[in-house]
Amino acid sequence: MSERYDIAIIGSGPAGLSAAINAKIRNKKYIIFGNKELSTKLIKAPKVNNYLGLPGVKGVDLKDAFQKHIDEMGIEITYERVNNVYAMGEYYSLMVNDKIYEATTVILATGVEFSRPIEGEETFLGKGVGYCATCDAPLYKGKDVAIIGYNSEGEEEANYVSELASKVYYIPMYKGEYNINSSIEVIEDIPERVIGDGSVTNLQLKKSEVTVDGIFFLRDSISPAQLVPGLKIEEDHIYVDRTMSTNLKGCFAAGDCVGKPYQYIKAAGEGLIAALSAVSYLDKIK
Amino acid sequence: MSERYDIAIIGSGPAGLSAAINAKIRNKKYIIFGNKELSTKLIKAPKVNNYLGLPGVKGVDLKDAFQKHIDEMGIEITYERVNNVYAMGEYYSLMVNDKIYEATTVILATGVEFSRPIEGEETFLGKGVGYCATCDAPLYKGKDVAIIGYNSEGEEEANYVSELASKVYYIPMYKGEYNINSSIEVIEDIPERVIGDGSVTNLQLKKSEVTVDGIFFLRDSISPAQLVPGLKIEEDHIYVDRTMSTNLKGCFAAGDCVGKPYQYIKAAGEGLIAALSAVSYLDKIK
Ligand SMILES: Cc1cc2nc3c(=O)[nH]c(=O)nc-3n(C[C@H](O)[C@H](O)[C@H](O)COP(=O)(O)OP(=O)(O)OC[C@H]3O[C@@H](n4cnc5c(N)ncnc54)[C@H](O)[C@@H]3O)c2cc1C
Ligand SMILES: Cc1cc2nc3c(=O)[nH]c(=O)nc-3n(C[C@H](O)[C@H](O)[C@H](O)COP(=O)(O)OP(=O)(O)OC[C@H]3O[C@@H](n4cnc5c(N)ncnc54)[C@H](O)[C@@H]3O)c2cc1C
Repeated sequence: MSERYDIAIIGSGPAGLSAAINAKIRNKKYIIFGNKELSTKLIKAPKVNNYLGLPGVKGVDLKDAFQKHIDEMGIEITYERVNNVYAMGEYYSLMVNDKIYEATTVILATGVEFSRPIEGEETFLGKGVGYCATCDAPLYKGKDVAIIGYNSEGEEEANYVSELASKVYYIPMYKGEYNINSSIEVIEDIPERVIGDGSVTNLQLKKSEVTVDGIFFLRDSISPAQLVPGLKIEEDHIYVDRTMSTNLKGCFAAGDCVGKPYQYIKAAGEGLIAALSAVSYLDKIK
Repeated sequence: MSERYDIAIIGSGPAGLSAAINAKIRNKKYIIFGNKELSTKLIKAPKVNNYLGLPGVKGVDLKDAFQKHIDEMGIEITYERVNNVYAMGEYYSLMVNDKIYEATTVILATGVEFSRPIEGEETFLGKGVGYCATCDAPLYKGKDVAIIGYNSEGEEEANYVSELASKVYYIPMYKGEYNINSSIEVIEDIPERVIGDGSVTNLQLKKSEVTVDGIFFLRDSISPAQLVPGLKIEEDHIYVDRTMSTNLKGCFAAGDCVGKPYQYIKAAGEGLIAALSAVSYLDKIK
């Protein structure tokens, strides 16, 4: 049986890191999922003026300061992507590809996805447009599918779908080697419009067009509602109260994913609150 | 006529400073009230582990980092104490001893006062017990008054009252040189009980007792409800929603004064939210 954590933190941006620091200080058994760069939004910022105490830094400097902080405290990030979180009553199950982690509380610090939907994407959502290829693959048995991957994790999904679908086009939105089945056709082009008539019929790209029955956009973060079934969403963000509690007992959230303003120190402040709320929840149910 | 500010920030702890930084970035006409030490709670912290990005610092280091940040941005603190804030409809009036400042929006970042009221203090509040000596001084013309000063700002108030009152006792709750009129009697003792009969008659201290008509407690911060009449208080803190709006239009609050956890980065995050909410309020009413 897998060991059960007190607190599982999903996301390694300022919200998740601040939560981890406070979980550690409070001596809880925690795990934090994220990536080596901590947050792509940290690296991208050209200049940050409003992180009180660190004036006029570049995003990269901020990232280094955060990395130094967690290093000094011995906090290690688990470089894995959580696909789903299920409320099991007393605890949560976190699905990471073929693994399952268990935790009594969960802190969602997954950020938000900035890339805008392309033309027609929202119109055909659920009518051929989807965001989880592996989930919906059975619907496309013997059909033609386009998969737009925003990072290398999309390759695995494309491979899986290609075993069922008649034809898979893979459109990578990043540079690199593609680790995909030979039956998959890679198109290096920019998707521009979803075309359909009741349901999806075509994907128009900048330089070409393909005829498909389904189109999957596999972006950096999936929507929280999809990540945690049953989670209450309000105006596109995770609903939380002032203690950063969501509608699900033992599930907390912080940072961009709970709403604007999208800012580092707001995310860090909320990460702290979420961690202390998780700690007090754990102490109460003991 | 006094010029009107867009945003008046009361308090120079992390919440107020973070609000000021963002008011400045957003090009608003702002003023921030506070003191030279920024916040006594900053200086007092022996070691701070949980301010993400500044690992293992002393409170004083944090204070220096904050000072550097506002210096680099050209933010200057007005070293004055706001005694009262009145909602005037379209704007707020901020009373600072003999001066009045006007601002369209106000951000309360006054922190919390940890020292508990002494015995009898609450019973005789308004019946001889007060928190603003300069405001109530006229009531004590020719009478005897005890002033309990929690920091050196109390000296100025004592001097002012001594010009009207017949006798002023000054009871400093801190160490240092006292810059006070020679007519004032300094008592170095600990106040223990307010005694009265309908209204205040005596102040009992640990080692002595004085006969007085009025007693002023000049603590680091006065209660928000007293500072801003009409402000909604919930469980001892200023009520705010997730945008840091109070029940009064155009009045926002952040930091310890809006509730636990009492922590630096939580205060800084909330200061940012309050500033951006004030900015969007200003933009709407334009
Ligand atoms: C170009 C740019 C400039 C900016 N400039 C500023 C600025 O000057 N000042 C400012 O205050 N803010 C700025 N921001 C905003 C700031 O980046 C965000 O507000 C902040 O990063 C939010 O922090 P977060 O922790 O909520 O989320 P993020 O920083 O987005 O971190 C979320 C992390 O969670 C990971 N994640 C998501 N889902 C999963 C999952 N299922 N499993 C595992 N990991 C997952 C993501 O990969 C990511 O690493 C800027 C943003 C950009 C893009
Ligand atoms: C000994 C000690 C150790 C601590 N250690 C930590 C720690 O390790 N980590 C952590 O995160 N937190 C710690 N804290 C808590 C932290 O100090 C507070 O959470 C934080 O200072 C709150 O910031 P604030 O801006 O809300 O208020 P404050 O920092 O209290 O600032 C409020 C300011 O407003 C001023 N003010 C009030 N009323 C008025 C008025 N009417 N007019 C003008 N100015 C006014 C006050 O003089 C003060 O300067 C510690 C606190 C103490 C006392």
